[in-house]
Amino acid sequence: MTNKEYYMNLALQMAEAVMGQTSPNPVVGCVIVKNGDVVGMGVHMKAGDDHAEVNALNEAGDLANEADLYVTLEPCSHFGKTPPCADLIIAKNIRNVFIASMDPNPLVSGRGIDKLREAGIYVETGILEKEATRVNKYFFHYIKTKKPFVTLKTAVTLDGKTAAQSGDSKWITSEAARMDVHQYRHKHDAILVGINTVIRDNPHLTTRLPQGGKNPIRIILDTHLDIPLESNLLNDQEAKTIVVCGNKAVREKQERLESKKVTVKRMDHVSINIEHLLVWLGEQQITSLFVEGGSKIHGSFLESGHYQEVILYMAAKLLGDPSGLSSFSGNVKTKMSDSHQLQFTSVEMIGADIKVIATPKKNVGEENVYWNN
Amino acid sequence: MTNKEYYMNLALQMAEAVMGQTSPNPVVGCVIVKNGDVVGMGVHMKAGDDHAEVNALNEAGDLANEADLYVTLEPCSHFGKTPPCADLIIAKNIRNVFIASMDPNPLVSGRGIDKLREAGIYVETGILEKEATRVNKYFFHYIKTKKPFVTLKTAVTLDGKTAAQSGDSKWITSEAARMDVHQYRHKHDAILVGINTVIRDNPHLTTRLPQGGKNPIRIILDTHLDIPLESNLLNDQEAKTIVVCGNKAVREKQERLESKKVTVKRMDHVSINIEHLLVWLGEQQITSLFVEGGSKIHGSFLESGHYQEVILYMAAKLLGDPSGLSSFSGNVKTKMSDSHQLQFTSVEMIGADIKVIATPKKNVGEENVYWNN
Repeated sequence: MTNKEYYMNLALQMAEAVMGQTSPNPVVGCVIVKNGDVVGMGVHMKAGDDHAEVNALNEAGDLANEADLYVTLEPCSHFGKTPPCADLIIAKNIRNVFIASMDPNPLVSGRGIDKLREAGIYVETGILEKEATRVNKYFFHYIKTKKPFVTLKTAVTLDGKTAAQSGDSKWITSEAARMDVHQYRHKHDAILVGINTVIRDNPHLTTRLPQGGKNPIRIILDTHLDIPLESNLLNDQEAKTIVVCGNKAVREKQERLESKKVTVKRMDHVSINIEHLLVWLGEQQITSLFVEGGSKIHGSFLESGHYQEVILYMAAKLLGDPSGLSSFSGNVKTKMSDSHQLQFTSVEMIGADIKVIATPKKNVGEENVYWNN
Repeated sequence: MTNKEYYMNLALQMAEAVMGQTSPNPVVGCVIVKNGDVVGMGVHMKAGDDHAEVNALNEAGDLANEADLYVTLEPCSHFGKTPPCADLIIAKNIRNVFIASMDPNPLVSGRGIDKLREAGIYVETGILEKEATRVNKYFFHYIKTKKPFVTLKTAVTLDGKTAAQSGDSKWITSEAARMDVHQYRHKHDAILVGINTVIRDNPHLTTRLPQGGKNPIRIILDTHLDIPLESNLLNDQEAKTIVVCGNKAVREKQERLESKKVTVKRMDHVSINIEHLLVWLGEQQITSLFVEGGSKIHGSFLESGHYQEVILYMAAKLLGDPSGLSSFSGNVKTKMSDSHQLQFTSVEMIGADIKVIATPKKNVGEENVYWNN
């Protein structure tokens, strides 16, 4: 690791630590170095708050003069909720600027760099770019597609079952894997399940980490508004809840849900079109969606092509019963070669379980898929 | 790694290289060291051939005098097909003997060591014992139980399917994973599949490695002797084939199979009792059995409790169809907690796929399970 990579890695570690709390903004870390001393460090902590560069420059004060600045994302060149960071960097007389990833918005990408160079600052880009892209993958996807990044999460036995035929699934994985799931809930803007999961498990869908954590917005796909009014989700006041239904759902039930301060989103068709849903969620500034199933929900996202990552926890158990539930109930396939093609991006042990991450091999085209319970 | 471990590791590497070719004997490696020079190396290559110690001592010649001897398994103290190695080690005036694992046979375990010590040789045991136990795990299991070590192998998609509903499974995993399977065929004495696999895939069940390899004995569970007479297994002359049937199978079909030099094993019941089968296979000196399914075969071994290892290859594919075939079809389970408990012993990438090895958590008691197609 070179010196440049060392400081950029530090900035990335800081950025990673605030994943989940900056949405709809990206995570950004910044480190200022002068004569081998770190003189300023900062992150962007929350939408509306100062950018990482501002926090780091404030900390550096006069020491910023002729210092080097490492930042994980290209400094902004435009007025948003705060003035442009590029202007501030120039005003503080920074000598060199090192950048990991470019602004993903094609309308402004490169402009911050141009501005710095025009002011005579040496700018180098692409330092630890791959890692920087990874920490902002939800944000980058959202900026490019205006739809949330979709993570499909499932937990299975060694023989691929998410539950016994009865629906009983308590518990497949160990405590360590379940804690890992709560980290993902914290990092995603929203969590999504189907009505069958709500009826069967009556979950809270909150983030329960030892150190606390942000609760995601809870989204329930419920074509006919079958959700029981006494469900925990409708009464625990822990997080915003959105119930999504088809256009034939009973109006009266909608009104009763709305009187409980629940948002009801009525779609344009009898059943729920996955792409239309994602477009609407994007309009609500939901940049990332953690889909916890069940099986039919996962199948619908799979067949629609609208998913960016699959996270599979596998326990060292064999149910040994083919009537147990599968993790992805999509369309009937006659041949193995009709499978959806993915690639593994990581595999690791987590407690007594295995955690596998896979991503679609290519965007196979987004299919017009409707979900109906 | 200490000096002792270094030489023992070398002996183990040599032993591992002959896995699959020494059955029903164990694999053994031996290294002789004098004044820091390796003066002799040997393995036991094949049942009936010289033991590892004999080969290494022959190579060392007069240099064996006052040398140190490293051997992965306790030297034998009794006359078998060859004279006792302990006597030869004493006769050659070896100074120190280092041993990895003890003889697993309780009737003779420790006797070789006693003999060496009585002759005034310094003996140390337990060096890299865990690794030594691993290379001989099939043999040790067989000596202790008189039944073959059973490995259940399966290949699945990320959503746990071994085939589409039609039975089509070509191909789930990549070439690299399939080559790994052929390594296991080489290392096991016998391979076992069910009649449905024979009818559907008409396989050869041979070992096809770039460097060659030993074909395992092929065992087909075929309750009613439904096997087509034109099956590759019955006609390719590549390896011995045993067809196992129930006691009501048609005699005439048995005679036709026997006329093709196929062994027919008629069991004592209408269907095939897994434990009785394993006892009989043990009597045939089959020390290890590689079970390649299908799903019902795997389910029977699972429910019987008679399996020592599960090897699962997982491809980065999602079939997305719950009617696809499961890897283990055992009994109906109402609750997830009725699952069989295992533990992961390794997980790794192999080509584009993941390879997982799991072992039963404890011997849960061996159930009286019958298989019937």
